[in-house]
Amino acid sequence: MAVALRLPSLTSLFSSPSVSRRYPAVLLRQSLRHFRPPPPLAAGFSAQSAASSPPETEDQVNNQKSRPSQERANQDRDRVITPRSQDFNAWYLDIIANAELADYGPVRGTMVIRPYGYAIWEAIQDYLNVKFKETGHSNMYFPQFIPYSFIEKEASHVEGFSPELALVTIGGGKKLEEKLVVRPTSETIVNHMFTQWIHSHRDLPLMVNQWANVTRWEMRTKPFVRTLEFLWQEGHTAHATPEEAEKEAMQMIEIYTKFAYEQAAIPVIPGRKSKVETFAGASKTYTIEAMMGDRKALQAGTSHNLGQNFSRAFGTLFTDENGQRQHVWQTSWAISTRFVGGIIMTHGDDIGLTLPPKMAPIQVIIIPIWKKADEKTAVLSAALSVKEALQKSGIKVKLDDSEQRTPGWKFNFWEMKGIPLRIEIGPRDVSSGSVVISRRDVPGKQGKVFGISMEPSILEAYVKDKLDEIQLALLGRATAFRDSNIVDVSSYDELKEAISIGKWARGPWSASDVDELRVKEETGATIRCFPFEQPEGIKTCLMTGNPAVEVAIFAKSY
Amino acid sequence: MAVALRLPSLTSLFSSPSVSRRYPAVLLRQSLRHFRPPPPLAAGFSAQSAASSPPETEDQVNNQKSRPSQERANQDRDRVITPRSQDFNAWYLDIIANAELADYGPVRGTMVIRPYGYAIWEAIQDYLNVKFKETGHSNMYFPQFIPYSFIEKEASHVEGFSPELALVTIGGGKKLEEKLVVRPTSETIVNHMFTQWIHSHRDLPLMVNQWANVTRWEMRTKPFVRTLEFLWQEGHTAHATPEEAEKEAMQMIEIYTKFAYEQAAIPVIPGRKSKVETFAGASKTYTIEAMMGDRKALQAGTSHNLGQNFSRAFGTLFTDENGQRQHVWQTSWAISTRFVGGIIMTHGDDIGLTLPPKMAPIQVIIIPIWKKADEKTAVLSAALSVKEALQKSGIKVKLDDSEQRTPGWKFNFWEMKGIPLRIEIGPRDVSSGSVVISRRDVPGKQGKVFGISMEPSILEAYVKDKLDEIQLALLGRATAFRDSNIVDVSSYDELKEAISIGKWARGPWSASDVDELRVKEETGATIRCFPFEQPEGIKTCLMTGNPAVEVAIFAKSY
Repeated sequence: MAVALRLPSLTSLFSSPSVSRRYPAVLLRQSLRHFRPPPPLAAGFSAQSAASSPPETEDQVNNQKSRPSQERANQDRDRVITPRSQDFNAWYLDIIANAELADYGPVRGTMVIRPYGYAIWEAIQDYLNVKFKETGHSNMYFPQFIPYSFIEKEASHVEGFSPELALVTIGGGKKLEEKLVVRPTSETIVNHMFTQWIHSHRDLPLMVNQWANVTRWEMRTKPFVRTLEFLWQEGHTAHATPEEAEKEAMQMIEIYTKFAYEQAAIPVIPGRKSKVETFAGASKTYTIEAMMGDRKALQAGTSHNLGQNFSRAFGTLFTDENGQRQHVWQTSWAISTRFVGGIIMTHGDDIGLTLPPKMAPIQVIIIPIWKKADEKTAVLSAALSVKEALQKSGIKVKLDDSEQRTPGWKFNFWEMKGIPLRIEIGPRDVSSGSVVISRRDVPGKQGKVFGISMEPSILEAYVKDKLDEIQLALLGRATAFRDSNIVDVSSYDELKEAISIGKWARGPWSASDVDELRVKEETGATIRCFPFEQPEGIKTCLMTGNPAVEVAIFAKSY
Repeated sequence: MAVALRLPSLTSLFSSPSVSRRYPAVLLRQSLRHFRPPPPLAAGFSAQSAASSPPETEDQVNNQKSRPSQERANQDRDRVITPRSQDFNAWYLDIIANAELADYGPVRGTMVIRPYGYAIWEAIQDYLNVKFKETGHSNMYFPQFIPYSFIEKEASHVEGFSPELALVTIGGGKKLEEKLVVRPTSETIVNHMFTQWIHSHRDLPLMVNQWANVTRWEMRTKPFVRTLEFLWQEGHTAHATPEEAEKEAMQMIEIYTKFAYEQAAIPVIPGRKSKVETFAGASKTYTIEAMMGDRKALQAGTSHNLGQNFSRAFGTLFTDENGQRQHVWQTSWAISTRFVGGIIMTHGDDIGLTLPPKMAPIQVIIIPIWKKADEKTAVLSAALSVKEALQKSGIKVKLDDSEQRTPGWKFNFWEMKGIPLRIEIGPRDVSSGSVVISRRDVPGKQGKVFGISMEPSILEAYVKDKLDEIQLALLGRATAFRDSNIVDVSSYDELKEAISIGKWARGPWSASDVDELRVKEETGATIRCFPFEQPEGIKTCLMTGNPAVEVAIFAKSY
């Protein structure tokens, strides 16, 4: 009964009869007075006086191509977010601006991470920090200024990083004798210190991690995905044997994989990088590769077996149990704020952000609905009780009781912000002791359930259950999307065909580095990884026809 | 009975008969083979190729004066830590090296925060982060590179900070058109962004915080206390009225005060800075001033009422309820890794570090003691049970079951590391179902209690009780020390006398800035603050004899 009666009573509370449409024009126009127009993107990149880079970044080019500012201004009156299918890049930037995840810093390519975006990063930190400690790592902090000479010590490292360095040349008003590198990564300074701390096999393994900012002078930037400065964690370990180092590097990529699947609902593909794509200074690089909504690959985390490359360059030695001096075996591994971009581009839709419950700063938004003043007290009081009950059971819940906005405006706003569940409470709900619950991931009526009891234990169980269901549904959806966009190929022609229609190509590969670079040149795709999970059977290299041990995955990437 | 029998049985377990002495020479010599000799301090500062500063820093000077490397090497064979009373600075550096709190980075004046030191910083973060969120602040992140022109916008800010700036002039291999400042603090970039985000009174208050690294090109550095790069939190808020900004600035200094007293057991004196000592760009600066073990003052945290200084410089305006455009009123506030230095210098003693239980990464160390192989299993099993029981009740506990060290060595090591409580378990304890507990803050037999039941609920209650007792005892001791070293003065002669014997002077003050600078010139002391807590009665300025409204506290400081 409550269900049947519900809709008319709800719609009658709204100021606009168009409320039952998903995007009632009147509400959106209203909302635009609140949604500050995102800073015009070209202007966001105009304060580039500090930069020596070409004036046209990827963002600017995309922006100028697809949405000149006048057109943009016109669009804003009709729509908040560019449809994803129309222009994935514009959609991504619109979400970041409208959901207030980040903003452009005054220096080209830098990013301000706003509270809502930072809260997602904090959820990443909270989970990983516990896992790192459980597996025996301690947090610490290394200085960010590295003498330039350090970077030059490991040959492939300097080759990889020297084009992207920011250099401090003046300190305290004086020109420095040696330029200082603002860390792009810390292997060199870590080894400088490890060399002082490690003496005997009893000092091993040495396993540390730091949460820090790093700087890479990137030319083509994009919020979260590639910024001049970004936040990350970087783990660094030293071991007595190559087996231990390999085990550690594998353990960390497994922790990242589990995190991606279980927390971020991103079905990453873990695997090994090709030699061409291996980290500058590593012996082996393991990676988790994620498929974004536009089917481009995102390298979402890496773990490196560094072998003895840095310990030889820095003389990091230990005395083994037989009294022999040996170089230590090392690993390093990192996940960065780029992962926030991966969450946006995996789960978001035309409406806006969609957050997996385990990553959501707010899991449940409560919208109280009343028309007459005499209804207000009862509705707000019930909403507050529901909030407190859910909060007590550990659910992250927010009550939007502001009076400046209509319920319809709030529905749209919090959907755009990606909140997994919405609870609506109106006067009739108060009378019947129940609430209405809507799922963010199932738009419209299908995702809406009426008449859920307000009784705390029932409601809590229902909400927790739904949050788990959404978490799994998002993973399921992303997995289905991923699997339907990977094509098994057995020839270079098939590979080219798959890439040309925007898919990932998976095929046996044992060809040369030159062949790999030729694929990149001709198709724009690179080997993302040799996945750990390999098909059985005899394999023939798609390029050369020679026997191959493994399949590789090729894709265009961020 | 157990008590009477205890001592002989325990001592018989040690390899050296000298175990009952606090510092048995044999154990200390043993220990030095494990305590890696702290890196010679002069060498720690020798990799100064990157620096343009004078070659002699405070540390070097002190180091070279008091402990040339050969003398130091000789000392190391006899003693781990320089007695505090003999040389406070050498004692401080010895503790940092031996307790592995920090190490010198390769660039002059930079510091590597090692896991044990970083864990103390994490305890500071964990407490404050919760308090900041409870009081309505959100974490976020601003880029660390600030266009040089920003720094010049607020006149007193540029005057205060320009001598200490590190400047990036090269990025991606090219000379930059505008130099970038590596943030010394973020008011300028914060205001640049606030100006874009704040439009109406409905956008206020805006209250954010960031955990970040900052860089100040200091000439005289000292680990934790003053380093070229350090970690801190910086809060930034914007309000519609001066009253709200003032209330916020006061609220934050109160949170810092409560933190210092209740968590760090440091009886800071909260108050207002004199005009001369106010932060570059602030209208008012509030501070918490702590007395270190050498009676020098440490500014341990500050909260600034910025007035409209930055909002005028950056045009940060809002439309008030009457439709008028107004500049916002702002605050900023910070606590840094310097606070870790404050904890060391407040509570440490000749033995080493002493940590307040609420700040201790390890609150209880368990040392199992056995002699014969057949005792080992029972002792280790009991020790593990005790560990698990304490851990379950939320106590931070570590079991040192390594077999390479004697119990005596472990006693010394963990005392030096400042662990508040030690639990000893030997074969007789296992038989009697009890343990021996020693307090770090009460050396020798007075701090040792025998025959505490191993029964989990009894032991947990006892340990928690003792930890609370130690927490209060440390605060009480520091408060008594502070109070016995503050002298009330009513004339400049009395002030000079107090300062000359190393004490703090408290007296009525209404003299000029010139007089204040003269005191600094002639005595080395500065006004640390006008304390919030003021004596009653009529006051006469100690310098001029004119009426005074407040007393000020003068002291030498770090």
